[in-house]
Amino acid sequence: MELATLLVSCADRRGIVAALAQLLSGHGANILDSDQHTDPLAQMFFQRIRFDLSELATDQGTLERALAEVAQRFHMTYRLWYFETPKRVALFVSKYEHCLYDLLLRQRAREFACEIPVIISNHPDLERAAREFGVEYVHIDKSAEYKGLAESREQALLEKHRIDLVVLARYMQIMSPEFTQRWEGRLINIHHSFLPAFIGGRPYHQAYERGVKLIGATAHYATAVLDEGPIIEQDVVRCTHRDSIEDLVRKGRDLEKVVLARAVRWHLDDRVLIYGNKTVVFD
Amino acid sequence: MELATLLVSCADRRGIVAALAQLLSGHGANILDSDQHTDPLAQMFFQRIRFDLSELATDQGTLERALAEVAQRFHMTYRLWYFETPKRVALFVSKYEHCLYDLLLRQRAREFACEIPVIISNHPDLERAAREFGVEYVHIDKSAEYKGLAESREQALLEKHRIDLVVLARYMQIMSPEFTQRWEGRLINIHHSFLPAFIGGRPYHQAYERGVKLIGATAHYATAVLDEGPIIEQDVVRCTHRDSIEDLVRKGRDLEKVVLARAVRWHLDDRVLIYGNKTVVFD
Amino acid sequence: MELATLLVSCADRRGIVAALAQLLSGHGANILDSDQHTDPLAQMFFQRIRFDLSELATDQGTLERALAEVAQRFHMTYRLWYFETPKRVALFVSKYEHCLYDLLLRQRAREFACEIPVIISNHPDLERAAREFGVEYVHIDKSAEYKGLAESREQALLEKHRIDLVVLARYMQIMSPEFTQRWEGRLINIHHSFLPAFIGGRPYHQAYERGVKLIGATAHYATAVLDEGPIIEQDVVRCTHRDSIEDLVRKGRDLEKVVLARAVRWHLDDRVLIYGNKTVVFD
Amino acid sequence: MELATLLVSCADRRGIVAALAQLLSGHGANILDSDQHTDPLAQMFFQRIRFDLSELATDQGTLERALAEVAQRFHMTYRLWYFETPKRVALFVSKYEHCLYDLLLRQRAREFACEIPVIISNHPDLERAAREFGVEYVHIDKSAEYKGLAESREQALLEKHRIDLVVLARYMQIMSPEFTQRWEGRLINIHHSFLPAFIGGRPYHQAYERGVKLIGATAHYATAVLDEGPIIEQDVVRCTHRDSIEDLVRKGRDLEKVVLARAVRWHLDDRVLIYGNKTVVFD
Repeated sequence: MELATLLVSCADRRGIVAALAQLLSGHGANILDSDQHTDPLAQMFFQRIRFDLSELATDQGTLERALAEVAQRFHMTYRLWYFETPKRVALFVSKYEHCLYDLLLRQRAREFACEIPVIISNHPDLERAAREFGVEYVHIDKSAEYKGLAESREQALLEKHRIDLVVLARYMQIMSPEFTQRWEGRLINIHHSFLPAFIGGRPYHQAYERGVKLIGATAHYATAVLDEGPIIEQDVVRCTHRDSIEDLVRKGRDLEKVVLARAVRWHLDDRVLIYGNKTVVFD
Repeated sequence: MELATLLVSCADRRGIVAALAQLLSGHGANILDSDQHTDPLAQMFFQRIRFDLSELATDQGTLERALAEVAQRFHMTYRLWYFETPKRVALFVSKYEHCLYDLLLRQRAREFACEIPVIISNHPDLERAAREFGVEYVHIDKSAEYKGLAESREQALLEKHRIDLVVLARYMQIMSPEFTQRWEGRLINIHHSFLPAFIGGRPYHQAYERGVKLIGATAHYATAVLDEGPIIEQDVVRCTHRDSIEDLVRKGRDLEKVVLARAVRWHLDDRVLIYGNKTVVFD
Repeated sequence: MELATLLVSCADRRGIVAALAQLLSGHGANILDSDQHTDPLAQMFFQRIRFDLSELATDQGTLERALAEVAQRFHMTYRLWYFETPKRVALFVSKYEHCLYDLLLRQRAREFACEIPVIISNHPDLERAAREFGVEYVHIDKSAEYKGLAESREQALLEKHRIDLVVLARYMQIMSPEFTQRWEGRLINIHHSFLPAFIGGRPYHQAYERGVKLIGATAHYATAVLDEGPIIEQDVVRCTHRDSIEDLVRKGRDLEKVVLARAVRWHLDDRVLIYGNKTVVFD
Repeated sequence: MELATLLVSCADRRGIVAALAQLLSGHGANILDSDQHTDPLAQMFFQRIRFDLSELATDQGTLERALAEVAQRFHMTYRLWYFETPKRVALFVSKYEHCLYDLLLRQRAREFACEIPVIISNHPDLERAAREFGVEYVHIDKSAEYKGLAESREQALLEKHRIDLVVLARYMQIMSPEFTQRWEGRLINIHHSFLPAFIGGRPYHQAYERGVKLIGATAHYATAVLDEGPIIEQDVVRCTHRDSIEDLVRKGRDLEKVVLARAVRWHLDDRVLIYGNKTVVFD
């Protein structure tokens, strides 16, 4: 099988489902999965189609041109991805190793359809982990140099490695608005609280102070406004009066790992569509 | 809007998605939601389409004939339901009131798109609840009379009330193979364990004995083999060494209610397809 | 058995556990359960002891005097409750029936060790439910009369019925600071969000807008500051892009019921201790 | 602080709580936490006491002799552990790396109060992981040599390293009854199903066949009877008709890791007591 995934969003109109189904079947593509959603309030249409093009009657170029035409007709935003081209992911980390190891182990276990050519960090501490997995590790010390310059170096690295997705895996630095804008929809962050509760710094301390009975973690696309971007995934775990702040941090690590991993996998599988400040996740 | 839902299953072949999309759009039906699944091992195709027929170019009869034709071509099993016709549900209960009240209150709160014209019980105890909600209550004492005769009376009641779905809401009697077969796919039972663990009687006692750390509940279509039918929904709740059997029963009641309610709602919304001994649930 | 529960909190010091154990066993009381917690940051000590006094060597009066003496020595706050005296609960409701039915059904099923002599409402709608369960229903229309006056009538009712605990079961009125202070630690509210997210009005709408992937409910002791009181229990349920606001409301109802019921049961079983703005829950 | 933990179980009698509290406070030990449970059906008493002995009026030897005396009087089984002596853990693995990495990373992050001096495997594959963490890796090929002999070598290694706890971290070999008996209560296994459902081999395949809507994992003390030992912890994760067996395996890995880690941490913290075929977990 030669798999491809088509992700579509546009203003809702009649006939979109039929038009896309006809287009694909007309070119000999076989639809394997199709997931569709209409938001009646926003009057928006969303669809994810996974299809096999091993028996395509024409060729990829012809199919793409026909698709572009339909897209224009319906004013669609769309993304077409061929499965044979794995996405390329860069990880940003600081000193915490749990999310880094988790992502690297999942990639090695083939949970993720991606390559991870580079890890960028504002600290030298995790270089050893990178070496174990054979990934290039670049230390860019943001406290030592002008921030704009550091980001230029980061951007150059991302371009050099033809990166498709940036994952902030507990990276304790705030990116500039230019950076978040440039990587809009391709920049995933993990925040260690159940957003919108406990925005900002030291959320586990905030949770401890408030005396909540559950703590959470949130994976979201990073935007210019801290912790306010579109949420991809969230989860919680129970805590009690017996939990110290250290216990919350420990329980939280397990949450951060699984929540971030789910968000990354869904993004890599082209299951996530952004609209307004929300997401559609076809899981 | 005039809503209808089409549920389809058949052996997987190319072109099914396109054929159905074309059929509906060709008759002027507007597809609102479409959910589709292919089981690659069983080589089966499943789809649920919800559409609006308020601007139908033809009429319902023409659409139905065209659908029957496509269904024949692809050897489909299908079910078409018009939203304006609420399904009719019969509840079977014994002495426990929690599931009964839960279902009646949900129906009154319009969580369910259904009517509940009759409650059948092997005990007189819950008649008062039925009266509160204005539902006919029929007491058929299975210990007092020949079982086959009792079931004939039950069947007659279901026919008289033109019942579409039977819900065994903690009904403590085993139905005959004739009955389960006649109501195949339209007979939902709630079992108070996480099946296939603790099949049979007194599952909370079994769970207590085994020292499990979670207890569960399972809603499934009842078949001739007890507790072995296709599972629609399951859930669990945490328990500890501090929980007595009475505590497990109490915690279990909350589970039974929500698990059964979800299964009933999904069935009423035509979200459940059975194949082999499993279900596809388009939620 | 004649059961009693002792709830103790005080500044942490050596010897408290031993002093209480000695006191009880010295009088012939048999300790059945003992749960203890020390908060090292707040340097506070908490304990719950459940004991049997059927073979008391002295009498209840002597035991109580001895307890008062120990309490004075350690500057303890404490509460002693004899199981034979069920607590008396008043429910405040508006128009939503789900929490009301849930609490009444649980009380009837003996999940709660309490009596419910009165339901107070700012609407006449739910009187019928009260009648079904044989509970007095008092309609106090807060829009029609001076609020202070209405609250005086409410307070008089609570006193007349010798109420121990007030439960705001989706009561859509804000109580005065005088009222919340008078009932401090004996006034439980259910808020339909995962606090501190979505404080204030229309939390399901807020959750929908923000695009969260889980919605929650929080039971807390009401204080003068809206939605800021000590949290007793919280829980969440998963939601997706497919959920409309109505779906969130429906899913939320199930949460509200179980979260409120757990909080009420724990309070009735003397399992909850308040300190600062937090709770210790010995479950 | 000099911490110690005392774990006690015995037939239930009056005065046990008071006797232990007096004993400890009489020697100048300060009780920090005390958790107690009575099983009324089994008529058994259980207690966990954590105390500080930095201001002990006597010495450890005197305290231990006094404790032995009280234990004899009440026919107690007990375990006393001084926090300054970390427990020593051996890991058994086969080819799967997820549980191994998870445990090693948690130990490095100080989630576990233990040392891990040795990893034993029936395959050479995971030696590299052991090297990364500086742990001795011993390959004992059970297919190549007489099983009894292999186990003798394993037992010799465990003795040489003065091992307190053996963890079967997805070790795909069945241990002999002699081995499980010798390590009774100190041998933790992770089974990749929600026991007692899907006992034995290929539980994810069994779960797929049955069409369950949740899959689980169970950590338990291994006994002579496969998958029947006392359960320490269980958890589940939701699955749907869309999940292939590979998806279940992937989701299951996350479960196995956290469930095993919780069980190991609770054991290391002396929070688990076994009685009959069940556990008391003071968490």
